[in-house]
Amino acid sequence: MDKRVLQKSDGRQLILYARQPWTGEATAPSPSSERLAPTSHLRWHPLRGEWIAYASHRQNRTFLPPAEYNPLAVTADPQNPTELPAGAWEVAVFDNRFPTLFRDADDAPAIEVPTRPGRGACEVVVFTQDPTSSLGALPLARLELIAEVWADRYLDLGARDEVDYVFEFENRGVEVGVTLGHPHSQIYAYPFVPPIPARELQQQAEFLAAHGRGLLEEIVESELADGRRVLYRGEHVVAFVPVFARYSYEVWIATRRAAPSVAAFSEAERADFARALKTVLLKYDGLWSRPFPYIMSFHQAPTDGLRHPEAHFHAEFYPAYRMPGRLKYLAGSEMGAGVFTADTLPEEKARELQAIEVSLS
Amino acid sequence: MDKRVLQKSDGRQLILYARQPWTGEATAPSPSSERLAPTSHLRWHPLRGEWIAYASHRQNRTFLPPAEYNPLAVTADPQNPTELPAGAWEVAVFDNRFPTLFRDADDAPAIEVPTRPGRGACEVVVFTQDPTSSLGALPLARLELIAEVWADRYLDLGARDEVDYVFEFENRGVEVGVTLGHPHSQIYAYPFVPPIPARELQQQAEFLAAHGRGLLEEIVESELADGRRVLYRGEHVVAFVPVFARYSYEVWIATRRAAPSVAAFSEAERADFARALKTVLLKYDGLWSRPFPYIMSFHQAPTDGLRHPEAHFHAEFYPAYRMPGRLKYLAGSEMGAGVFTADTLPEEKARELQAIEVSLS
Repeated sequence: MDKRVLQKSDGRQLILYARQPWTGEATAPSPSSERLAPTSHLRWHPLRGEWIAYASHRQNRTFLPPAEYNPLAVTADPQNPTELPAGAWEVAVFDNRFPTLFRDADDAPAIEVPTRPGRGACEVVVFTQDPTSSLGALPLARLELIAEVWADRYLDLGARDEVDYVFEFENRGVEVGVTLGHPHSQIYAYPFVPPIPARELQQQAEFLAAHGRGLLEEIVESELADGRRVLYRGEHVVAFVPVFARYSYEVWIATRRAAPSVAAFSEAERADFARALKTVLLKYDGLWSRPFPYIMSFHQAPTDGLRHPEAHFHAEFYPAYRMPGRLKYLAGSEMGAGVFTADTLPEEKARELQAIEVSLS
Repeated sequence: MDKRVLQKSDGRQLILYARQPWTGEATAPSPSSERLAPTSHLRWHPLRGEWIAYASHRQNRTFLPPAEYNPLAVTADPQNPTELPAGAWEVAVFDNRFPTLFRDADDAPAIEVPTRPGRGACEVVVFTQDPTSSLGALPLARLELIAEVWADRYLDLGARDEVDYVFEFENRGVEVGVTLGHPHSQIYAYPFVPPIPARELQQQAEFLAAHGRGLLEEIVESELADGRRVLYRGEHVVAFVPVFARYSYEVWIATRRAAPSVAAFSEAERADFARALKTVLLKYDGLWSRPFPYIMSFHQAPTDGLRHPEAHFHAEFYPAYRMPGRLKYLAGSEMGAGVFTADTLPEEKARELQAIEVSLS
């Protein structure tokens, strides 16, 4: 993998990745020349027992700009720079211009509840130079490279003192609030282990202590044995609608062994992960013959310096729609009580996705 | 309070409430004459450690019906019955025709994860016979009656063996998925204490054990002392944007003392609660001179037969918009990691709401 690390004039980092070394100089353009001074702090929510991030400078961030301005496109006219330069790079990563968390966050104000600086990082991962493509439409070789980039970012960000958890995710579609259609994902590097992974890790640690084996390993084996909800059955990686799915068409991709993170994948695991990922995404887009909006979340081992034998890499996909044209609204029961109500059975939705044939290349 | 309990031909319960006794016979119409046989079961999500409710019969529930069919309107033509009869009732409660949880739920299937029947109740609370009104537009006397109805339902449902938690909430606006514009709220009576109240109660119990006083009592006092985020300062009840608000314009209404539930309100507390509620709702609708969509959640003491000295009634309001015309999307960070990111400071949003003048009557 070829990796070039550059710095934008406003102080932000840009990294260009390619499978092969390429020739030519790369610049590090930025839509704004002024040095960024974002403000961000965390406040403690005493009843929920969790941190809330406040980044008020984000209010005016780019919102569905006209097609003629795409900050993730390659810069065509140096007078109108985007975030990315010309060149033979394949995947690019840069610091978000409107970060919720960043490295040099100021001290937090002293108020009635505990606070701390919003230290961490928010990065954007651009999958391709083609603004009209999508993650699932990319060739397997590109997906493998993207997995290598995710691994690289996990290691780089996770090595920072202030980062306890590297959260890699993709929001896809205007239905989940995406402001830019150009294929990309995001990374939030938090200075604490966030509540949802923390809860999962706690459940996994308890299971490991009680049974001497991994909870998700057991789930994967049980899904493979049952078979009714399996979408991809690889030698190293599987994809399935979990028997306890909360969303219609919810899918999980997991390694068979408890690989703690994408950075721990063997080459064979990475290749199998690319196949599983492409299978799921093509099935999603094939389901209603339209781009299928979702949130994709990676749950991995924290980078908090502690041992996490309970961690087991998996990607969770939360679709925006429960039926064609009918969004799943998270309302009173989900948001006020925390109880998901599903209108459909995982077995039915899995059958629909199983029926969609895909060809990998 | 006048209360008439009736039964619909399909087996569902209808209760009509009014401040004063009224004359005349009341019928119990139903849009469907067939006896309902909903199916519902719960599955255990082992990684999150929570129950998920599956009610696949809900898939085809009423979805934004045309204005000429409003099931919450009073029945005008007995050939086309709605859910509600004519009569001098003021507030009505009936069993949801498409319940997620219900009293006679079948045994759950035996599958790979623990399951249990979806026992409990889902009720609809209709605030008025006027389909064009709204909770905040109703007179204080009606809001006091509605609070009495919430108390009545809390006690009635909470007394059932299978009910461990009575969750009272309102979803308002198409933005949060509301299918019927007629002013109403809902009640889910769960057979377990749901994760979000459970988490809050745990934090409250720990604080009580450590400090000998209530966590929310301390928060209320601190908000009143600071004053910058207070929207209503009553003798018994207060409304404020909490210093740890997750949503823009998030508001909490709480009693000053740790009243465990709406059913524990004194008459003076109920009257003050009605004033606080109306104040908040009028400020919301006044903010952008349009109906303000939100989720309103009551967090109260469980009805699980245990003592809950840590419980302290409060209503939490989660607005759908973060700015005029800009929805707050819950995406990767919120849904995948559980970390709320706010674009605005609670102090700024509180100031905007404080500036909206309202007159109560």
